[in-house]
Amino acid sequence: MKKNKISNAVIRRLPRYLRHLAAMRREGQERTSSSALGSRMGLTASQIRQDLSCFGEFGQQGYGYNVEKLYRELREILYLNQEKDAVLVGVGNLGHALIRNFRFRESGIRLCAAFDADPALVGSSINGVTVEDAAGLSAYLARHPTTVAVLTLPGRYAQQTAELLMEGGVKGIWNFTGFDVEVPGRFPDVVIESVHFSDSLQVLNYLIGGGERETE
Amino acid sequence: MKKNKISNAVIRRLPRYLRHLAAMRREGQERTSSSALGSRMGLTASQIRQDLSCFGEFGQQGYGYNVEKLYRELREILYLNQEKDAVLVGVGNLGHALIRNFRFRESGIRLCAAFDADPALVGSSINGVTVEDAAGLSAYLARHPTTVAVLTLPGRYAQQTAELLMEGGVKGIWNFTGFDVEVPGRFPDVVIESVHFSDSLQVLNYLIGGGERETE
Repeated sequence: MKKNKISNAVIRRLPRYLRHLAAMRREGQERTSSSALGSRMGLTASQIRQDLSCFGEFGQQGYGYNVEKLYRELREILYLNQEKDAVLVGVGNLGHALIRNFRFRESGIRLCAAFDADPALVGSSINGVTVEDAAGLSAYLARHPTTVAVLTLPGRYAQQTAELLMEGGVKGIWNFTGFDVEVPGRFPDVVIESVHFSDSLQVLNYLIGGGERETE
Repeated sequence: MKKNKISNAVIRRLPRYLRHLAAMRREGQERTSSSALGSRMGLTASQIRQDLSCFGEFGQQGYGYNVEKLYRELREILYLNQEKDAVLVGVGNLGHALIRNFRFRESGIRLCAAFDADPALVGSSINGVTVEDAAGLSAYLARHPTTVAVLTLPGRYAQQTAELLMEGGVKGIWNFTGFDVEVPGRFPDVVIESVHFSDSLQVLNYLIGGGERETE
């Protein structure tokens, strides 16, 4: 599996490829082509070829792509077969929603514990995940090496909690706080992936408003 | 305000520009430069100049950008001053979280009503928004022209509900269902903006895994 420098735009499209390939796989489709995959995803055939060539040679002239093989390769590329342990911090409505409904395992994540400062929540269990006292977060991380943290607490606690998590060895923070968490220089390997709801809604607003755009 | 064909990548960066400009404005900063804005946002100065040039000439040689002016222009470009009416469909944990905590107005949206099929929720009020019976959605849309719909119900109801909303005149759907809603050909003006949590988590997983990437 060859890896060149991959642009962020390509990285962000990989999960979309995977979703469509998973659907084709469920539908029993064995092979596909750049143009079929492209028309399904709203991309050009040449875009598809270009994206997938960043990761090596998958297609075969005259045959196209083997759905199962490409699906498995993409899962490898996204490290979905190496399950990582995670904690969630902040069990408000959004935290609840994620614990209850989000399929972490399908994205290669095992949600092991949740933390909140509210005594009314501590000790409860949601979908098999126990809510622990936020005061015990550092001690927990010392006992249970944890790679990923889901941050679903109010923005004003985001930075301090993120740094506590990084101190505790967390390598990736999935940030829903709306606050742009910064990574101090002493944690060169930590990555933050923020879901900024307002960015998404503003893009929708722009597109409805009739803003010009390419077809991607 | 000149508008050329704008790439999706640029459109998706506009809300980020706006967030950083809003912060600079709050901090009382009057002017900035491509390089200062770039280092704050993790982009190169030339990227900043290129992005903003898509929308006209904002900067001035030797002066840079006026923060207040650029902030206002970006709000115009994103149509944030033209408030649009919205409904939310599906008042589960995520729907609750958005109604309670998300600042719709800051993204140019007025959330007017919520809908759910659960009789236990119908008639209740969350953060000033009344939950109405989902059976009355079409009738509501006929009475209250509505531009935006927030879709927070289970994926299996996504497509049928989306089409009901389009029939009712909704122009933009903010889709949290995890299902890729399709727009039938008879609604050429409708846009879908999906927040796919799993896509975001898989990107995080990739980056933690040590996947190669450019610095954007």
